[in-house]
Amino acid sequence: MNELDAILAADVLLAADMRGIDSHGVARLSGYVRLFEANRANANPQWKIIHETPSTATVDADNGLGLVVAPKAMEIAIEKAKNAGTGWVAIQNSNHFGIAAYHAMKALEHDMIGIAMTNASPLVAPTFSKERMLGTNPFCYVFPAGKNKPVVVDMATATAANGKLEIAQRNQNEIPKGWVQDKNGNESTNADELKNGGALLPLGSSYKTSSYKGYALSSVADIFCGVLSGANYGPWVPPFVSFLNPLENLPGKGIGHFVGAMRVDAFRPVDDFKNNMDNWIERFKNATPIESNQKVIIPGEPEFAEEEKRLESGIPLNDKVVEDLKSLAKKFKLEF
Amino acid sequence: MNELDAILAADVLLAADMRGIDSHGVARLSGYVRLFEANRANANPQWKIIHETPSTATVDADNGLGLVVAPKAMEIAIEKAKNAGTGWVAIQNSNHFGIAAYHAMKALEHDMIGIAMTNASPLVAPTFSKERMLGTNPFCYVFPAGKNKPVVVDMATATAANGKLEIAQRNQNEIPKGWVQDKNGNESTNADELKNGGALLPLGSSYKTSSYKGYALSSVADIFCGVLSGANYGPWVPPFVSFLNPLENLPGKGIGHFVGAMRVDAFRPVDDFKNNMDNWIERFKNATPIESNQKVIIPGEPEFAEEEKRLESGIPLNDKVVEDLKSLAKKFKLEF
Repeated sequence: MNELDAILAADVLLAADMRGIDSHGVARLSGYVRLFEANRANANPQWKIIHETPSTATVDADNGLGLVVAPKAMEIAIEKAKNAGTGWVAIQNSNHFGIAAYHAMKALEHDMIGIAMTNASPLVAPTFSKERMLGTNPFCYVFPAGKNKPVVVDMATATAANGKLEIAQRNQNEIPKGWVQDKNGNESTNADELKNGGALLPLGSSYKTSSYKGYALSSVADIFCGVLSGANYGPWVPPFVSFLNPLENLPGKGIGHFVGAMRVDAFRPVDDFKNNMDNWIERFKNATPIESNQKVIIPGEPEFAEEEKRLESGIPLNDKVVEDLKSLAKKFKLEF
Repeated sequence: MNELDAILAADVLLAADMRGIDSHGVARLSGYVRLFEANRANANPQWKIIHETPSTATVDADNGLGLVVAPKAMEIAIEKAKNAGTGWVAIQNSNHFGIAAYHAMKALEHDMIGIAMTNASPLVAPTFSKERMLGTNPFCYVFPAGKNKPVVVDMATATAANGKLEIAQRNQNEIPKGWVQDKNGNESTNADELKNGGALLPLGSSYKTSSYKGYALSSVADIFCGVLSGANYGPWVPPFVSFLNPLENLPGKGIGHFVGAMRVDAFRPVDDFKNNMDNWIERFKNATPIESNQKVIIPGEPEFAEEEKRLESGIPLNDKVVEDLKSLAKKFKLEF
């Protein structure tokens, strides 16, 4: 990759590690390298805008890393918002973009609301199906505040994303009911169920507790990211892991993302908005707790706390990740 | 109300009944009348745009019914989208807007994606709290298709909205775990729990199955509809029922909505999008089912089926609703 793109990609991975999203940080570095090695991703993409209006654009990422193209698409959205009030960019022909919050949070320094979504390779079964049809397709919404940290919603639309399963697998733990089903569509608490042909469950977990809502939300992300951009969607989204090949006769190009930026002052004065956001945040923090030692958490609060802690004490890496980075360093003749 | 506004409001209620959303149809008519009688809503509002950019506007609804102002705000969004690619309207100082899908679906005839959200009076407790802080704040996203019916996602961000509880109450049924908690924050299966000081649970139902995601989604709707528009938010959103008074020292005006319209051809040619939507819909309908007699359902499919049925056989009204309409007719000297 060229140096500037490499620095940007590293910054996205580092932000994930700093925020405590260990599943999306340097632990993934060798995965991206394997995508390059398998010619599944383009290290030096010539991405371009292929369609636009005053408040929208569609970007062809030229099979580059989402880590690099998504922040650039977010910059386009921000520029559009400066003129039109809001800016929206759909991205086709891309690859995994890391944490959604990195891209959406770029809006904050401009007093804008930031939005980012992506689709991802299929692991989630829609309600009533035993087939993996959707990715964990995250939604991210970022709202600036005044004295307080911004509100940062960054969530997979599955009940539990794959990272949580991997932790349970490492610790040989049973997982709660409602995270996965087995290959026949039955309830399961086996952390290895995905390896056995099972599927993750949409947010809501079961029909009785409205899993069709999680399935619908995941579909919304899939349609914005896949169908609206001209990328692949549903079961056709190419796998992140290089040892699995994409399906044949794909209906679109690569994976897709969707990002947006909305100027707060396109709706009301920024100070009024931020004052009300502070009031919102403080009121919710002080909602009557069930247990006196566990207050209500504001979306994004745990990640800001983790970032502060890791800025002080460093990023704890697990041994497997350290070994993985060491072999990458060796392969590319870099100091470790 | 003036005749045109009354016709529009009736059309929104009728659409709910036609689509099988009985909780939001004519069953609510007397509730709206009581809001007028209690001087809680303005029957002849002078709503106006108080702020705008090429792709955005903020509307002060002058305390009118959301049933009337939301479709008009959606028209503004559609006009903005014609020029800027997308249009977004935040609405303050409003009241209950009926079903979100009515407003969002106005985008369809223009080959646009439609979006509608509202906040609502607090019934939902955030994760770790026993206090009602959020409404059932629905998200609605509508995507046009080609040969197939559009995809219509219209969902409360609580696991189960109040209407479902009311049905269980009428039938004296226990409700599933995960819908409500009691006033101390404990799990409950009592359909009357809300009357006893309990709360609805956010989508995800419990911490283990990620109720903080449902709480976050409901917060996103609350911030777009309440904070961004200058309406009330969180626990301050005024109650729909006229016998409960709004809190004092409100931070905003009335309740809030947020609507949007996105031209499909601001991103890619409409025919390409619709072809891919048809493919998306058909692929999901044919996802491998768990039970051979229950196929995967496309978001919006049950409501279109119900509409077709009711167009044929009429709208079944329950006796209490008929009595309620009869007394309204008598009060206003109308034929029944």
